[in-house]
Amino acid sequence: MPESIKDKVAILGVGCTKFGENFDQSFEDLVVDAAYAAFADARIEPERVEAAWLGTFSPYAGHGKASVSLADALRLYGKPISRVENYCATGTDAFRNAAMAVASGMHDVVLVLGAEKLRDRPIRGLSWEGGHPYQHDGLTAPGVFALAANRYFYRFGGGREALAKVAVKNHHNGSLNPKAHFQMEVSEEQVLEAPIVAWPFGLFDCCPTTDGAAAAILCRADMARQFRDDYVLVKGLGLAVTSGRPWYDPTFEYVGFTATQAAAKQAYTMAGVRDPCKEIDLAEVHDCFTWTEISNYEDLGFCRKGEGAHFIAEGRSKLEGDLPVNPSGGLKSFGHPIGASGVRMIYEVVTQLRAEAGPRQVRDAELGLVHNLGGPGAVACVVILGNQ
Amino acid sequence: MPESIKDKVAILGVGCTKFGENFDQSFEDLVVDAAYAAFADARIEPERVEAAWLGTFSPYAGHGKASVSLADALRLYGKPISRVENYCATGTDAFRNAAMAVASGMHDVVLVLGAEKLRDRPIRGLSWEGGHPYQHDGLTAPGVFALAANRYFYRFGGGREALAKVAVKNHHNGSLNPKAHFQMEVSEEQVLEAPIVAWPFGLFDCCPTTDGAAAAILCRADMARQFRDDYVLVKGLGLAVTSGRPWYDPTFEYVGFTATQAAAKQAYTMAGVRDPCKEIDLAEVHDCFTWTEISNYEDLGFCRKGEGAHFIAEGRSKLEGDLPVNPSGGLKSFGHPIGASGVRMIYEVVTQLRAEAGPRQVRDAELGLVHNLGGPGAVACVVILGNQ
Repeated sequence: MPESIKDKVAILGVGCTKFGENFDQSFEDLVVDAAYAAFADARIEPERVEAAWLGTFSPYAGHGKASVSLADALRLYGKPISRVENYCATGTDAFRNAAMAVASGMHDVVLVLGAEKLRDRPIRGLSWEGGHPYQHDGLTAPGVFALAANRYFYRFGGGREALAKVAVKNHHNGSLNPKAHFQMEVSEEQVLEAPIVAWPFGLFDCCPTTDGAAAAILCRADMARQFRDDYVLVKGLGLAVTSGRPWYDPTFEYVGFTATQAAAKQAYTMAGVRDPCKEIDLAEVHDCFTWTEISNYEDLGFCRKGEGAHFIAEGRSKLEGDLPVNPSGGLKSFGHPIGASGVRMIYEVVTQLRAEAGPRQVRDAELGLVHNLGGPGAVACVVILGNQ
Repeated sequence: MPESIKDKVAILGVGCTKFGENFDQSFEDLVVDAAYAAFADARIEPERVEAAWLGTFSPYAGHGKASVSLADALRLYGKPISRVENYCATGTDAFRNAAMAVASGMHDVVLVLGAEKLRDRPIRGLSWEGGHPYQHDGLTAPGVFALAANRYFYRFGGGREALAKVAVKNHHNGSLNPKAHFQMEVSEEQVLEAPIVAWPFGLFDCCPTTDGAAAAILCRADMARQFRDDYVLVKGLGLAVTSGRPWYDPTFEYVGFTATQAAAKQAYTMAGVRDPCKEIDLAEVHDCFTWTEISNYEDLGFCRKGEGAHFIAEGRSKLEGDLPVNPSGGLKSFGHPIGASGVRMIYEVVTQLRAEAGPRQVRDAELGLVHNLGGPGAVACVVILGNQ
């Protein structure tokens, strides 16, 4: 039987750039800003970093060349740097690989960095069937998730009003967050009246494309206190991959994501979480579209399948609710530079667990969850972090 | 201090497709062939695989979609699959991440799979300065390595005759290998008279572009005997990244690769190797160009800098030499499907350590080295494998 690595890895520090249209920053500038913020937060000199993991989805779109662009930006020469890519779960999977490396004993102090520049020019590979006729039929990211949302509403009832509540909540949280791409409140009316992108998603149901980077410094838990007392521990890790072409399976019912369910199960088992709704104090989840957040509530076990619209309507996922979700503002208002998002979510949860989140601080945050979802719901990564 | 993971991870089995112009096989076909050969060799059922690492450089060039294409090809659903990319060191770095995951205790039995399809259509990203004027000046892969080779010959003397000896040796070894892309002997005259690609490299100084896949099954060493007695142990791991733009550094002397030197030092330290020339029984090294193999001899410590041409001329790296290099035929004749190559080298070293290499078998093979080099010599990964 595998041995648990629960509590063997600590997060010493985190860093995050302002997310947005960072036309004045290169890929390397973003890397430097996020990494040096994390070095300072972890109270380590950059030289202490023994190895690094870079999460970036599309470095060949003109910005960055994976491991070498991290080496060049930080002058981190002669050391191991891996690039991990896993669709929109890239950032959390880079973190997961780094955490296992630290737990193995191979390295004591490592850097995880997620970065992506999406605004300068369009990137290839964001449609799942490049060159396939399906792409021409609308199977873009909004198209694929819209299919699922429509199926979900057909099965469980409800509609765009439920989605609008997610947008309103996440824009409210983002309005409190100086690093968010969009720092503005929106009303339900604004969301419902916005131009349609792919029914049932209007403009405010879709996360933006964004530039940004985030970083975390990991360390063996048994030496973390050398650096700071209030480190955060890795409690659970899960990653699951399902089919990249779920629509080819005639038995597939597109009302949720088995990848999220499987990744959450792995992470809950490792962390010893039996009742996530009661035990998890806050969650940063992958709200690429408003409906995705509703499905996430269910797939992560915060409520039962089909009850997600009630969960948001009852205000349970608001900042002052019993299980605040996306206190950062989420992908919806914080933005979604693909490889950066997972690490940015870890940044938020660590900040919340240390009670340093200011006006968006969640009460009594002791155990937090991070969730990334990638591809057509095909890849999910769940990370559970907790105080000592 | 980090703890060594030496001898904690075993290789239970390996698999490899025929390399070549595999127009009749999809990316998924290659994955299936390599993986099922490894399952059979490891004497495990596919269901035993708990997690997987896919090494592929350019899945978005039209073949494969990283983790999901591995999941779909093998029906490996609901489990963790990471994609690792690190230029031409992609395969060995995927192996390295998988080995650390096993050593951490997180997973008992995992799959590492390297795959790439290069023949169907050209891939983007093979030039280091995409969109940069340098690319138009010839900084392709042959161009970049030719710069170094010319500088090397200027500094240490010698020329194309030394390169030809590498091509002759590796084509001879490849002629003994039924899985090699090219299974034909070449003469020094043929090599020297071939059309020039980028001086001093002629056609036979360059590795081909190739389709192929290779796989390895890793397992905790303390449970390996459940599956087979003659497993191979991971003795050393090293990865080093240097600048992706070495030519911008005016102090840089382009006569070898500090990435290889640093990665080898890490791996030798972990494996306890003090005199590689005496202790290493065989090596599979990254001969993307014939000169690269000569530099590798030096950078890996098989001889001193500047003595590589003597090392090949004296026949020391031949099959019957005292340190056989590339008994498989090397990238030169085996081919170089980028993400597959590192895992294919591991396949060869495991086969040699088990004394199953037939007519290309190296004598008394107990400790073998695998070396990948990527980018403009910017990324190197070294893996040392040994018998129990």
